[in-house]
Amino acid sequence: MTNLKQGFYYQMCVCMCVFSLYSADSISQAYICDLAPFSNKLYSGELRKRLGITAGLCVLIQHFLEQNADRYEAIYSFYFGDYGHISVQGAYLTLSDTHLAMTGGSGVFEGVSGTVKLQQIVFPFKLFYTFYLRGIKDLPAELVVNLVPLTPAAIANFTN
Amino acid sequence: MTNLKQGFYYQMCVCMCVFSLYSADSISQAYICDLAPFSNKLYSGELRKRLGITAGLCVLIQHFLEQNADRYEAIYSFYFGDYGHISVQGAYLTLSDTHLAMTGGSGVFEGVSGTVKLQQIVFPFKLFYTFYLRGIKDLPAELVVNLVPLTPAAIANFTN
Amino acid sequence: MTNLKQGFYYQMCVCMCVFSLYSADSISQAYICDLAPFSNKLYSGELRKRLGITAGLCVLIQHFLEQNADRYEAIYSFYFGDYGHISVQGAYLTLSDTHLAMTGGSGVFEGVSGTVKLQQIVFPFKLFYTFYLRGIKDLPAELVVNLVPLTPAAIANFTN
Repeated sequence: MTNLKQGFYYQMCVCMCVFSLYSADSISQAYICDLAPFSNKLYSGELRKRLGITAGLCVLIQHFLEQNADRYEAIYSFYFGDYGHISVQGAYLTLSDTHLAMTGGSGVFEGVSGTVKLQQIVFPFKLFYTFYLRGIKDLPAELVVNLVPLTPAAIANFTN
Repeated sequence: MTNLKQGFYYQMCVCMCVFSLYSADSISQAYICDLAPFSNKLYSGELRKRLGITAGLCVLIQHFLEQNADRYEAIYSFYFGDYGHISVQGAYLTLSDTHLAMTGGSGVFEGVSGTVKLQQIVFPFKLFYTFYLRGIKDLPAELVVNLVPLTPAAIANFTN
Repeated sequence: MTNLKQGFYYQMCVCMCVFSLYSADSISQAYICDLAPFSNKLYSGELRKRLGITAGLCVLIQHFLEQNADRYEAIYSFYFGDYGHISVQGAYLTLSDTHLAMTGGSGVFEGVSGTVKLQQIVFPFKLFYTFYLRGIKDLPAELVVNLVPLTPAAIANFTN
């Protein structure tokens, strides 16, 4: 994924960051089986605004006994209300970041390609996504936000 | 989805309309469960020509009790015989129209992107699809048709 | 799929060939049911190098009694280690070749479109894939190989 790190690439693509959160009132359960339908709530990157939902399924591909980790193949979409949706396909690993492919979109995301980085903040309840969007113009201001730190805030040299 | 309504966009894209019909001799059953494989028959927009099939699966995401409606995530393909196929990914709502993303295609649809509008005419037996195809050249004449009205024909001010 | 045969098209696209093999120690079983998760091992086109895995699911769409053949809808990805992945969607027929659509990719395959030809060499254990990659630059040398014949080698006029 080295080309994602190059300045040239960043100039050509539009970035968008969102969180997906699993909570007790999430739409459907995130259970572990061979084929798991799922849907979680979607928030903006500063966690101030509810954006929509994720919806799709993931397929258990491999279990790593020593690390107690799993590999899933994930096929799902991100829904952003009237702004439209983005569909993705790729790997979800419970112990490391992955890059999924954007396979298409609607509304302001029509014709999108590129990749989305999936980072696990608190397994399996809090995921952070960074979209590297290609093939579309600028995003609506509402979808571009200042980010919060990915870890809980803390004062410098706080007593632990 | 406002950009779909702009004249400029229509100039750049190729349109195609098809029906999918569920009948007693359909290939597989359209049953309701968490994960539903399905396949329906595909007809041209004037309902005169059999085009092929749809094939794929849909995932139940949410049930709306008050409206007695469902939200599905759908991942499937449209097959047009020797002309090739179009794959799509997106939402299917039983009570309103949706726009799914075209994720790719083969044959005359190779390299396709854009969206397809899914309209429910008679739930769940008759669906109408309008493809806004981008990234491909003109369609074969056989796939471009004059449309029938989406509702049953009627005389002006008919006695109801 | 006639445009795949044209010289003009070949000039614009990048080709890559890989085998997928099912063996007793394959990651997950290739069993027959309505919805089958699967994962197989991936080797280079000359069968000398392990490249990675395939991962995804296929959906049984139709069984042809007379030919004892099946039609599946397949939604899966090819993983090539640090090089990234390619996602695909389309038909898998047990008795004939098909062309699936590439829906997206990551790493060196980011922004990919085009089709991949699926050829069955030994059902269901050995599949041969030819990728006609569009939208990307040249592949790493490690992924470009000289092909082995698709059938077992034999001397000229060998005694049968």
